[in-house]
Amino acid sequence: MRLTPATELEYRCKKLQEHMLSDSLDAVIIVQNADLFYFTGTVQSGNLYVPASGQPLFMVRKEAGRARMESGLKEVIPFSSMKDIPAILAQYGYSAPKRIGLELDVLPVNFYERYRALYPTAAFSDATPLIRMVRMIKSQYEIHLMKDAADQADRVYRRAREVIRVGMTDLDVAAELEYTARKDGHQGLIRMRGFNSDICYGHIFSGTDSAVPAYADTPLGGMGLNPSFGQGAGLKQIEAHEPVIIDFVGCVDGYLSDQTRVFSVGEVSDRMRKAYDDMLEIQTLMMRVAEVGMSWGALYDACSRRAVEMGYADSFMGAKGSQVSFIGHGLGVEIDEYPFIARGFNHMALETGMAFAFEPKVVFPGEGAIGIENTFYMSNEGLKRLTHSSDDLVILS
Amino acid sequence: MRLTPATELEYRCKKLQEHMLSDSLDAVIIVQNADLFYFTGTVQSGNLYVPASGQPLFMVRKEAGRARMESGLKEVIPFSSMKDIPAILAQYGYSAPKRIGLELDVLPVNFYERYRALYPTAAFSDATPLIRMVRMIKSQYEIHLMKDAADQADRVYRRAREVIRVGMTDLDVAAELEYTARKDGHQGLIRMRGFNSDICYGHIFSGTDSAVPAYADTPLGGMGLNPSFGQGAGLKQIEAHEPVIIDFVGCVDGYLSDQTRVFSVGEVSDRMRKAYDDMLEIQTLMMRVAEVGMSWGALYDACSRRAVEMGYADSFMGAKGSQVSFIGHGLGVEIDEYPFIARGFNHMALETGMAFAFEPKVVFPGEGAIGIENTFYMSNEGLKRLTHSSDDLVILS
Repeated sequence: MRLTPATELEYRCKKLQEHMLSDSLDAVIIVQNADLFYFTGTVQSGNLYVPASGQPLFMVRKEAGRARMESGLKEVIPFSSMKDIPAILAQYGYSAPKRIGLELDVLPVNFYERYRALYPTAAFSDATPLIRMVRMIKSQYEIHLMKDAADQADRVYRRAREVIRVGMTDLDVAAELEYTARKDGHQGLIRMRGFNSDICYGHIFSGTDSAVPAYADTPLGGMGLNPSFGQGAGLKQIEAHEPVIIDFVGCVDGYLSDQTRVFSVGEVSDRMRKAYDDMLEIQTLMMRVAEVGMSWGALYDACSRRAVEMGYADSFMGAKGSQVSFIGHGLGVEIDEYPFIARGFNHMALETGMAFAFEPKVVFPGEGAIGIENTFYMSNEGLKRLTHSSDDLVILS
Repeated sequence: MRLTPATELEYRCKKLQEHMLSDSLDAVIIVQNADLFYFTGTVQSGNLYVPASGQPLFMVRKEAGRARMESGLKEVIPFSSMKDIPAILAQYGYSAPKRIGLELDVLPVNFYERYRALYPTAAFSDATPLIRMVRMIKSQYEIHLMKDAADQADRVYRRAREVIRVGMTDLDVAAELEYTARKDGHQGLIRMRGFNSDICYGHIFSGTDSAVPAYADTPLGGMGLNPSFGQGAGLKQIEAHEPVIIDFVGCVDGYLSDQTRVFSVGEVSDRMRKAYDDMLEIQTLMMRVAEVGMSWGALYDACSRRAVEMGYADSFMGAKGSQVSFIGHGLGVEIDEYPFIARGFNHMALETGMAFAFEPKVVFPGEGAIGIENTFYMSNEGLKRLTHSSDDLVILS
């Protein structure tokens, strides 16, 4: 178990305060778990008050003792009711904020109303874009954790080579690999920011089931076990000569890796083999062209254009009618962070320190899906790979 | 895999419309996954429009095809943008709603603002209390699913008897039991409504670690693996003569059971044994006094008063300073449904059809926690148990 160093927390807070300055915010109040973990080093039930300048104040309802133990922040205090916040802030010398940023993409309305009641004359705005911009630039400490998560993904990949057999269900494979990850120290829970986003370790499915679209904002969907969670592994049995997709999210000390590999018992069809090689080519293209200063949208366009040239207009990143408009997504503490390698993001550029998963995939309805996914990092020396399992399509006998 | 019968969906919608009438709502727009599953029979990305009378209309962004396949609703249509909602509703003959209910306890502010922009002159209110009141009364179909989830919890319990050994870590036990549940068809994901609520199958921990409080709104917490998810199983090794807590949430076709059992390699201390027997006595007291018409708060008070008489004022439902103010919680599609067997809920009464978990527990800091949990159902013939593993403290050799 690693505790986030105090120097990391100080740097993160300073970066947020820089962004707050350009947005003229007097304060940001952070309450969502992933953001709390990032800015305090612990997930507790509480409010992190970040003033425009000076020390942040972490007010903790439950458990203040653990917050003090786990957080490297200087000011961690217990509190019991939101109504006390103005008095506590005044006591710590903060004047009443007039422009307050909140995480409006995730904060439920009923909570928002309570903040508005506390500061009825203040102007509220969405602080999440600022928070996302801080979080999208990873430190060496964070990259180190993500490398550990990539190593975990590799161990899951190796286990997949051992367990996949004809006649097993997709769920059987998922259970084995989730077990492998859990024993390896995976916390079980994967944080995903988007409202209504459901995720459980990733997506494991074979053949026709991997081509079934789902409600999730992902290129592949899957049947799942039932309509209450209609995505991922279901009860389909694995057959020979069909792709088995292992899209797995590693997690070590709260930090993620995302890797997809394809397995098959016996060779896949020529069409599938060609599609796999083509997706590798798109990955190679991405690695060649991605550079600091290039817009996220331009990187998406370059890769997407190549997929269309290859003949995948109706199958790239989903079956026709269910295609998603991204090929990659940032990750770190959550699986859906900045940058979005997505259509239309032409105003945001790649920067040193960004980490993202890139996942070119094609879907052939009634047949199956295939593709590759790796987690990358824009280092001082250009793009580097964090996930490192062999990119070969794994043919099992 | 079971699909929710159309008759169930019709009945649920009618009940919601009855509650809407007393709140004078013209419409409720449902978007949260658990509520969508309950009222449509599927989880898709979409908006369920429930008018004050007449058929509900399910507008689905992704995946309309699966929604049609999985939902028993008559009107399931594709849509691509929220901006189209007023035109679609007009086309289906619905006049513009003036009083609209939304799920304001879970709906993020940014989504709320979009609805307000669609209907700028409408009055919005929180529909969740109405939705909760519909969902808290279970049908025979739902109880049947929860019985299956209780059977699953029993299989996990039986596996726990086989695997728990001195020297294993709590995580080792969790991995084995989660694997057992997953192979049994557990969907992996457990739905919890509360903002920032994190959960992964339940809580498995031993001795001192089970007495560590956490941010979760639960009587026990646990260290967890790291500060990003500081609850549940960690790396503590199991020792002889200490309680090992297996608090496990079963899940079959989206419906839950909740059961806690205690295991020990060799006898526990006299103090722990007495506390366990006392918690069984509180369970017996609850089963004797719980009846239709009794308020949730009165049931809480009766049981809590007895715990204080027994000498557990500072240890019942958490260690001093970390005690929660409930002993039980409704469950069904989510783990935190009505009823709340909690302090102060004197205006809400037990009704036929309610299902809830009841979990009297005590925590001795630095030593451990102990207690029992079962899932109950208020039938026409009084309170019945759904979970059915033996209540005995399991002493392993």
